[in-house]
Amino acid sequence: MRTKTPSESRTVMTDMVLPSETNPLNNLFGGELLARMDRAASIAARRHSRRITVTAAVNHVAFNRSVPLGSVVTVEAAVSRAFKSSMEIFIDVWMEDRFTGERAKANEAIYTFVAVDDTGVPTEVPQLDPQTDLEKERFAAALRRKQLSLVLAGKMKPSDATELKALFTS
Amino acid sequence: MRTKTPSESRTVMTDMVLPSETNPLNNLFGGELLARMDRAASIAARRHSRRITVTAAVNHVAFNRSVPLGSVVTVEAAVSRAFKSSMEIFIDVWMEDRFTGERAKANEAIYTFVAVDDTGVPTEVPQLDPQTDLEKERFAAALRRKQLSLVLAGKMKPSDATELKALFTS
Amino acid sequence: MRTKTPSESRTVMTDMVLPSETNPLNNLFGGELLARMDRAASIAARRHSRRITVTAAVNHVAFNRSVPLGSVVTVEAAVSRAFKSSMEIFIDVWMEDRFTGERAKANEAIYTFVAVDDTGVPTEVPQLDPQTDLEKERFAAALRRKQLSLVLAGKMKPSDATELKALFTS
Amino acid sequence: MRTKTPSESRTVMTDMVLPSETNPLNNLFGGELLARMDRAASIAARRHSRRITVTAAVNHVAFNRSVPLGSVVTVEAAVSRAFKSSMEIFIDVWMEDRFTGERAKANEAIYTFVAVDDTGVPTEVPQLDPQTDLEKERFAAALRRKQLSLVLAGKMKPSDATELKALFTS
Amino acid sequence: MRTKTPSESRTVMTDMVLPSETNPLNNLFGGELLARMDRAASIAARRHSRRITVTAAVNHVAFNRSVPLGSVVTVEAAVSRAFKSSMEIFIDVWMEDRFTGERAKANEAIYTFVAVDDTGVPTEVPQLDPQTDLEKERFAAALRRKQLSLVLAGKMKPSDATELKALFTS
Amino acid sequence: MRTKTPSESRTVMTDMVLPSETNPLNNLFGGELLARMDRAASIAARRHSRRITVTAAVNHVAFNRSVPLGSVVTVEAAVSRAFKSSMEIFIDVWMEDRFTGERAKANEAIYTFVAVDDTGVPTEVPQLDPQTDLEKERFAAALRRKQLSLVLAGKMKPSDATELKALFTS
Repeated sequence: MRTKTPSESRTVMTDMVLPSETNPLNNLFGGELLARMDRAASIAARRHSRRITVTAAVNHVAFNRSVPLGSVVTVEAAVSRAFKSSMEIFIDVWMEDRFTGERAKANEAIYTFVAVDDTGVPTEVPQLDPQTDLEKERFAAALRRKQLSLVLAGKMKPSDATELKALFTS
Repeated sequence: MRTKTPSESRTVMTDMVLPSETNPLNNLFGGELLARMDRAASIAARRHSRRITVTAAVNHVAFNRSVPLGSVVTVEAAVSRAFKSSMEIFIDVWMEDRFTGERAKANEAIYTFVAVDDTGVPTEVPQLDPQTDLEKERFAAALRRKQLSLVLAGKMKPSDATELKALFTS
Repeated sequence: MRTKTPSESRTVMTDMVLPSETNPLNNLFGGELLARMDRAASIAARRHSRRITVTAAVNHVAFNRSVPLGSVVTVEAAVSRAFKSSMEIFIDVWMEDRFTGERAKANEAIYTFVAVDDTGVPTEVPQLDPQTDLEKERFAAALRRKQLSLVLAGKMKPSDATELKALFTS
Repeated sequence: MRTKTPSESRTVMTDMVLPSETNPLNNLFGGELLARMDRAASIAARRHSRRITVTAAVNHVAFNRSVPLGSVVTVEAAVSRAFKSSMEIFIDVWMEDRFTGERAKANEAIYTFVAVDDTGVPTEVPQLDPQTDLEKERFAAALRRKQLSLVLAGKMKPSDATELKALFTS
Repeated sequence: MRTKTPSESRTVMTDMVLPSETNPLNNLFGGELLARMDRAASIAARRHSRRITVTAAVNHVAFNRSVPLGSVVTVEAAVSRAFKSSMEIFIDVWMEDRFTGERAKANEAIYTFVAVDDTGVPTEVPQLDPQTDLEKERFAAALRRKQLSLVLAGKMKPSDATELKALFTS
Repeated sequence: MRTKTPSESRTVMTDMVLPSETNPLNNLFGGELLARMDRAASIAARRHSRRITVTAAVNHVAFNRSVPLGSVVTVEAAVSRAFKSSMEIFIDVWMEDRFTGERAKANEAIYTFVAVDDTGVPTEVPQLDPQTDLEKERFAAALRRKQLSLVLAGKMKPSDATELKALFTS
């Protein structure tokens, strides 16, 4: 199975914030953004694996900036690391002011998808070969995140999570 | 400001999985479930605070079971801990088989909401007084999660996250 | 077939009124509420019968209170009486003011559902055993409603609708 | 205020049954049809009154035929009688087989709308002048339905509902 | 195969402009109107052919009038000419002011649909027999439009497009 | 007003074909694609003009390939020529097979948008400076299309449409 680069799965989903997607402050609902990111990440996962892919987990997501009605929102997703049958997808969200066009980082999120066959059974995926510095940094961090997720799920002993342990004991 | 119990904010949102919400395996899209949970959590946060509330963060969410087309899904959200202007909302998701009626835990998720005034400025919320054992357990764990979130965001030194430190060094 | 109680089918569907669901006065469209009530009633009918269920009729529904944009609406449905293959579902609708949290009865409605097999043929359902005073009252009234409905449809002679006759001749 | 004919408010809404609107038997959801009929009736009420109109009540609706995915559905609504500020709207629903084009009556429903001003206060509407035999018949029956609705709501004594009384005592 | 008249395929789709369909000026999105016209035209094409029909082309469409939120929009579609397996559909769009009821032409559009069998292969359709002057005029113009479309697609030599040539050389 | 390049307005909108968007052959509805292209083109027009933009016209669009359920569709829009207050937007649509990932051109379309101020009055836009060969070719062709559109609308005499005349008389 051929190794792939993050560019091969990069997915850009640009769209407006419509009135039906806003909360009482006229900003994009958090839940609506979570759903858009899921669709973009799902396409990135499929482009990497060429399989049916299903959402396995959503990493911690912080909503630091509200996105007003009428903004243009760009969701950019790419595989940041591949494991056996799962892939970590890193998502950058940009918003653009309706009039000035000023572009600002609105959000970052990390989702995990699993590739499955037609019966829903997990199936192997190509490995990832990061190219740029940012891609390499995200690739490395993905391992720490996986360990943390295993520890929190009670599937790995904290003492075995070498990198995490270093973080808290240094 | 009067302290409130989790029951006062408990929100039950039951609905079916419709064809327009399913992926190629005919299961509920992860993103659609994230959006439903956000709406239920947002109502719970508003019931606790009686303010406009906005999604601040989504904690790690794992999708362990797929939810087939036609299932009945019950999303149950309640405030698990209140901080100054933010609230942690714990969400339990149940699915019901279309024919047998068998009910199974489909998911758990934790969202953080912030109460704001009409101009979007954070505003104080009532404290939470947990009643049952489960409510008390979730209340205690909420503090660890907040520390972890601050550490991961670089806003707290790992060495100050007393409870987390214990987890990794014990 | 085991008799069931109304609690076993009780279905709670809480959700917000979103901008895309409002009329020019910024209140929830009547038609949108009819559709939400149908989904909740359909789930209650399925929980009672564990069959595919289809809407057979909507009893007279009065919209006494308008429900403003941003309100939280709770639709509560439960089987109020079971006949051979049909079930009467009683639906209570509550609305909650966005800020004060004041809860008020917004509506009541009665739908009839029929349980069918995979080919759409009506199939028998469990009988209902009402428990509380309100459940017993609704159970009794359901028979009068069924007679009225049969008379209006020309399927029962008015003179045979004993209870109704008493109403108009006493 | 000029009297109007039913033709002046007649509203035709033709559309397909899409996959997102169907139940597990692949037929149109009852609730979806109720919402379509509400939109058509609302337009008819507005055409008659030239006011904002809101749904006041839905008369008994029976779903006698299921409407399969892919059918063409025609909802035809017209004012059947005007009272002081309320209007009864009679709705005929036709379905067309996808291939043969055979057209069949799928449903009938009766909604009541009230005309209101910008602040939601009921306001007078033009009277209706029925032309055809069918329009005259529906016009006459509308009074019986109004009496029945007032009796059921406890706003009219059964003994005062002259026409209804005749129905049950003859 | 029996020849048909335009009336036999005429399709009327009346609906309101809802908040979720409007742009920042509170007018109906052009794209939303294009989609409504496509659905109406698709039904007209099916009524003429009694086959599955798919959109083959959209002729030049000009949006001359904006359609405000709350307007009633009537889309009227009918087959204007039938070729071998394709049909030209002429669409008239009317808008009605919410309060005055004044009706104005909002748009005209021309779509081409092709009738296909279950496997997607084009299949023959009945010919059209125009009745009124307007129908005859549109029928004649349809041939010029087809020639223009073939020329623009490089499938006909401009010199063979007799009618078009006359237009530019007269 | 600074001249801009096509790259500055280029807008990429990637998304899946969902079940609610498909016709009876399980392919994307033509109308749904028209609406997606309108949203993408509208964003491109706004990025070029930094104004509110409204759809003015849709050029002839041919649907040559059907797009099956589950495909990934990429809509790519960029300004191809700017006039006084209007902009021509060229849209390329790509589809990707769900499993092989094979990417094919699914469609091309040309929309015209007008930039307006808050009251809807047309307002001047920056001129376009095409860079690549393809951009230059589309820039040149845009003038012919504008002439054709003016001729067809009866706003320009065919004899004045110099370039078009050449096409038909050479």
